[in-house]
Amino acid sequence: MTRLHQRPADQLRPIRIQRGVTRHAEGSVLCAFGDTQVLCTASVLDKVPPHQKGKGEGWVTAEYGMLPRSTHTRSDREAARGKQSGRTQEIQRLIGRSLRAVVDLTALGERTIHIDCDVLQADGGTRTASITGAWVALADAVRGLKERGLIAGEPLRAQVAAVSVGVFQGEPLLDLDYPEDSGCDCDLNVVMTSAGGFVEVQGTAEGAPFSRAELDRLLQLASDGIARLHAEQRQALEQPAQRLLDLGAGA
Amino acid sequence: MTRLHQRPADQLRPIRIQRGVTRHAEGSVLCAFGDTQVLCTASVLDKVPPHQKGKGEGWVTAEYGMLPRSTHTRSDREAARGKQSGRTQEIQRLIGRSLRAVVDLTALGERTIHIDCDVLQADGGTRTASITGAWVALADAVRGLKERGLIAGEPLRAQVAAVSVGVFQGEPLLDLDYPEDSGCDCDLNVVMTSAGGFVEVQGTAEGAPFSRAELDRLLQLASDGIARLHAEQRQALEQPAQRLLDLGAGA
Amino acid sequence: MTRLHQRPADQLRPIRIQRGVTRHAEGSVLCAFGDTQVLCTASVLDKVPPHQKGKGEGWVTAEYGMLPRSTHTRSDREAARGKQSGRTQEIQRLIGRSLRAVVDLTALGERTIHIDCDVLQADGGTRTASITGAWVALADAVRGLKERGLIAGEPLRAQVAAVSVGVFQGEPLLDLDYPEDSGCDCDLNVVMTSAGGFVEVQGTAEGAPFSRAELDRLLQLASDGIARLHAEQRQALEQPAQRLLDLGAGA
Amino acid sequence: MTRLHQRPADQLRPIRIQRGVTRHAEGSVLCAFGDTQVLCTASVLDKVPPHQKGKGEGWVTAEYGMLPRSTHTRSDREAARGKQSGRTQEIQRLIGRSLRAVVDLTALGERTIHIDCDVLQADGGTRTASITGAWVALADAVRGLKERGLIAGEPLRAQVAAVSVGVFQGEPLLDLDYPEDSGCDCDLNVVMTSAGGFVEVQGTAEGAPFSRAELDRLLQLASDGIARLHAEQRQALEQPAQRLLDLGAGA
Amino acid sequence: MTRLHQRPADQLRPIRIQRGVTRHAEGSVLCAFGDTQVLCTASVLDKVPPHQKGKGEGWVTAEYGMLPRSTHTRSDREAARGKQSGRTQEIQRLIGRSLRAVVDLTALGERTIHIDCDVLQADGGTRTASITGAWVALADAVRGLKERGLIAGEPLRAQVAAVSVGVFQGEPLLDLDYPEDSGCDCDLNVVMTSAGGFVEVQGTAEGAPFSRAELDRLLQLASDGIARLHAEQRQALEQPAQRLLDLGAGA
Amino acid sequence: MTRLHQRPADQLRPIRIQRGVTRHAEGSVLCAFGDTQVLCTASVLDKVPPHQKGKGEGWVTAEYGMLPRSTHTRSDREAARGKQSGRTQEIQRLIGRSLRAVVDLTALGERTIHIDCDVLQADGGTRTASITGAWVALADAVRGLKERGLIAGEPLRAQVAAVSVGVFQGEPLLDLDYPEDSGCDCDLNVVMTSAGGFVEVQGTAEGAPFSRAELDRLLQLASDGIARLHAEQRQALEQPAQRLLDLGAGA
Repeated sequence: MTRLHQRPADQLRPIRIQRGVTRHAEGSVLCAFGDTQVLCTASVLDKVPPHQKGKGEGWVTAEYGMLPRSTHTRSDREAARGKQSGRTQEIQRLIGRSLRAVVDLTALGERTIHIDCDVLQADGGTRTASITGAWVALADAVRGLKERGLIAGEPLRAQVAAVSVGVFQGEPLLDLDYPEDSGCDCDLNVVMTSAGGFVEVQGTAEGAPFSRAELDRLLQLASDGIARLHAEQRQALEQPAQRLLDLGAGA
Repeated sequence: MTRLHQRPADQLRPIRIQRGVTRHAEGSVLCAFGDTQVLCTASVLDKVPPHQKGKGEGWVTAEYGMLPRSTHTRSDREAARGKQSGRTQEIQRLIGRSLRAVVDLTALGERTIHIDCDVLQADGGTRTASITGAWVALADAVRGLKERGLIAGEPLRAQVAAVSVGVFQGEPLLDLDYPEDSGCDCDLNVVMTSAGGFVEVQGTAEGAPFSRAELDRLLQLASDGIARLHAEQRQALEQPAQRLLDLGAGA
Repeated sequence: MTRLHQRPADQLRPIRIQRGVTRHAEGSVLCAFGDTQVLCTASVLDKVPPHQKGKGEGWVTAEYGMLPRSTHTRSDREAARGKQSGRTQEIQRLIGRSLRAVVDLTALGERTIHIDCDVLQADGGTRTASITGAWVALADAVRGLKERGLIAGEPLRAQVAAVSVGVFQGEPLLDLDYPEDSGCDCDLNVVMTSAGGFVEVQGTAEGAPFSRAELDRLLQLASDGIARLHAEQRQALEQPAQRLLDLGAGA
Repeated sequence: MTRLHQRPADQLRPIRIQRGVTRHAEGSVLCAFGDTQVLCTASVLDKVPPHQKGKGEGWVTAEYGMLPRSTHTRSDREAARGKQSGRTQEIQRLIGRSLRAVVDLTALGERTIHIDCDVLQADGGTRTASITGAWVALADAVRGLKERGLIAGEPLRAQVAAVSVGVFQGEPLLDLDYPEDSGCDCDLNVVMTSAGGFVEVQGTAEGAPFSRAELDRLLQLASDGIARLHAEQRQALEQPAQRLLDLGAGA
Repeated sequence: MTRLHQRPADQLRPIRIQRGVTRHAEGSVLCAFGDTQVLCTASVLDKVPPHQKGKGEGWVTAEYGMLPRSTHTRSDREAARGKQSGRTQEIQRLIGRSLRAVVDLTALGERTIHIDCDVLQADGGTRTASITGAWVALADAVRGLKERGLIAGEPLRAQVAAVSVGVFQGEPLLDLDYPEDSGCDCDLNVVMTSAGGFVEVQGTAEGAPFSRAELDRLLQLASDGIARLHAEQRQALEQPAQRLLDLGAGA
Repeated sequence: MTRLHQRPADQLRPIRIQRGVTRHAEGSVLCAFGDTQVLCTASVLDKVPPHQKGKGEGWVTAEYGMLPRSTHTRSDREAARGKQSGRTQEIQRLIGRSLRAVVDLTALGERTIHIDCDVLQADGGTRTASITGAWVALADAVRGLKERGLIAGEPLRAQVAAVSVGVFQGEPLLDLDYPEDSGCDCDLNVVMTSAGGFVEVQGTAEGAPFSRAELDRLLQLASDGIARLHAEQRQALEQPAQRLLDLGAGA
């Protein structure tokens, strides 16, 4: 079998993590895994949700959405339908948990960093691109808080990034695009920290159940891919910010 | 550390899978993993959802709910709040996928088996008890269809059951009760078929990220536990049905 | 005409009021009127709703639900549909009013007793079984508050119980089961205290309107039946608690 | 005790049933029981709800609402809150059942008469004024169908009207206004046909439970009052239609 | 072309602004533009919405609704559908803005005047009749506050009224009724103060786009018509209050 | 007074209309009016809404949304809140009406073109940028239908574009940015076709009402500005498509 553009089984799609893409957010990142492109923003709010009040610590949460025509055929707008789908809720809960796994909430102080991941274009792996981009937006927001002297310690204990892996026609593949994702027998989303630990492992047999041996190979593939995503994140943080479209009109 | 009732780390809680507990459903099972008790019913409907229409095959789906006072402190009733929580939707999607992984939808014909899992009492592991009990309710509904001559082939390709495992104070434990689940560092829900394959693996680091070695030990523990649950399921199917409460008044 | 199991027209179905059936609630009762089986729990909350704040008294409220497959054919899950039906709201308002009619809210202190009635199996008369069981759950919750020294006086002024009566093929019948309820000309739900007063009388002509003479006979039938239900309630309070399913695993 | 305007205990408030008050509806009635004023319209629709399809008969249903400032203090607008209250649903179900009790659905043909009762001004007894006015609007709609030759038989088997009665400071009173309704010990809504039968009896003890003797006296009081309402209905049907406000501009 | 009742192109329909039509509201007006009849009430609330808190000033807001059968064919009840349509929200936002344009919120003190406009009968121009009547209800509520000595200054800086104009079969018409509104090429709603300024101009081409010359003629027509509506408002404020239906029963 | 970047009062902000920015939609445009940047997509659907069925013509509709952090401070996500705000509905209705004013629905055939306008970054004038960009996306979708031979005639009768104008500190300004929009006395949104006709004129006095003379000057300013936007639209349609981010990975 041949992947699009002759991509080897253990290779990521072209990755782009562009920072500072919009004007208002404390952190804003366009994260692309090939044709999957997600706008991730981090907003700093000077309040915490009720369950965190009076604890002397902060909170990190996330929301996720797909633009109606980010997909092959138009999907209903969730705001118009009046509710978020189960899939949407599942993904935004995953993004929030993944980020909190590397944040020291006490060092954040009594504030919330609210992450929004909006998929502009979808081609498989929107949740993994969201997590990977969201961490960079979060890092920018934290950097801002430190520069303004609002926090003293370091709330980020590590990086976190994510990738999907799956068995497609018997072969384990890294970073599935949409046709691969739709056609694969099993699909594993893996979230890991830069310290090498697993934060989330979510594997689902779409077709035939998978064996322990397949699971082992997929975990190794994911682990190697995520290490490269961590390198992309570090590199992005060293690049200058770049607006999505700069017409010389902004403040 | 000592588990409740001196339970060894690799031992399940007392399991009870009682069939025929209510009067109307085509399959009805009270599935208890210790103090976690879930009523699972299977309803046969002579229609399929829109996405399955005209394909000549059936469907299996699931809904999940917790009675408001199944928990330590009362939770809001989702019907009164007007929506199901993200957690509820996540769990019912998981139950549905797990069951469909072992069903030949073509052999079912154009009908839906609708599973309802309602938690009467919760003490950790409600989703794993739901899956384990739901399969038995499904098997009873299928048996009924076969006895009435409505289907010829065998829609059930295998059994499916689930268990949770986690690392608590450094030690891997099988089948976590609520205090263990709340206090553990990482928590893995595993769904497997009686043919030995994985259907779902969902691991989350609640505290520190988990290593590959920990993951390997947890998978082994789960695998052994699920084999015992498959045995409990088979044994239940050989027992006579028993109503939750039989006053000699029923039809 | 012959009733199921040769039941005489003025006889209740077999009644069972089993206390202490679940582990967490301050009061928990499985109340069966024949094949109608309702799980009633009472939860003590240390707050009152807004309209009771600052009055120095408590509140008693109720919610009601039917498990989707408690009925002959599966009903939609109200949590999934996103709202409670008019019927559900009507019934839960009735249960709440009936209980408050026998409670001295001042003696309760500033706390709420929240009753949940969930129908596990339905065969007619779910609202009357709910009220009858709910009072026992309430009594257990009140007993707990007194034993813990949290309240001094007696909040319960009387018992309250309920039964349905109706004219079926010209004959007045006590405690209608589902086929009788569906086929009767008129249907009366009666709620009375152990002091002999009426709390609610709700009569509806399903077919032909009913005469004053029929109404009088039905009220007498109901009154006699409820006296027997009050006796069942008192007897239940003297029996030991019994779990729905006790595996020797609970705390 | 003295009622407003020295009204005797067994006397109705001034009643006005004005027909033809709006321009578009097939039947439109302003029904006033003193200061309680309800606009009742009947709309004829050439379709039946799903549960009536293919039966060769029609349907009658009702909806109810209170204008936000029909009451002493402004209530939330239900359309803005996004749902109808339990009280609203209870009342509209009652209106619908009461009307259907006197309608031969077969004679109606496969059409729906949809009743809307909107309270313009409230002073107690809005549900009883709604039922009483709705029947007249229904009669006008039926008359129109007959005049247009669309139905042959007589769908109306009788008149239906309703009144409230209650025990206030020990004395049974007919047709309670708002202060009487708020202060009474028990409150009974009675719906009867012109043939003398009961369609609905809904009694609630607001304070102390009521005795059988009190119930008997209240039923007699209601029965006499409703006979007078039936006379008012007949008289209204003989009066010419009269617009709410006629500026000589209408078609 | 001939308008109904030979109305000239630049003439309003018969206008009636009747004050004091219901009993409870601080201001209540039935405003009729021919067969369009809207009940407008003003309710004084001793609180302000969150966005106005602590500013030492008040608020004016509006809600709008159509009774289901105010229209030619019955429309769904918004409370039953569970949400207000986009059209409803658009209109109630317009009414609120129009009124606030002539109110000195500081002179009002920390209270809200909540306007409700409910259309009893619709024949085109419901939003303009709503604004015109709402201002009179507002004026009555303000008068009451002044008479009770609750406010010292004058919160009303001017009158505000509204009218629709449109080009129908090539001819500019004032105050469109429903058939004219449905058939016109363009439709302009204009809101003006008694000081001669524009508050809102909302023009929509239903068919062919309109030219600048047409717009100019329509604005002049509207301006003249609104001056007459301001005169009607002043005259209404000098007339005695008159109930919708007075049976001599009220307090 | 000085506008940002010394912009003259009658000058538009820098305009960019970039086509083909995403992969799946039949038309996709990033439309920037300075820092206001809206992603407009056009989706072709082979069905029409119920009110257009069987008429032999098509439909054009629009939905609008703002990403939560497109604004200075984060707004709630409408999908999470469960409903679209009144403002959102007002804007999407405006976009739809504006586009339909220049479309021959018959020439479109029985299909819907569904426009989605999602604001990525907001700095005033999001509705006018949406309309202006949406027309180009629509034109691309129509071009595709013609190229595929699916439609024969020309559904687009003209171009349509929009701009805001307002009086700020006494001076009429074209194309308001957010600070100007927030601070202006009155604000006019104007939609015009390339044939010179008005499609929508929506003026609102935020502070003092505006005079006829001011309105005349604003309409002239808008008219001149829109002519330039029509030129920008034509120029965009001659430029090659350009992805938002092209990594050489797409199909």
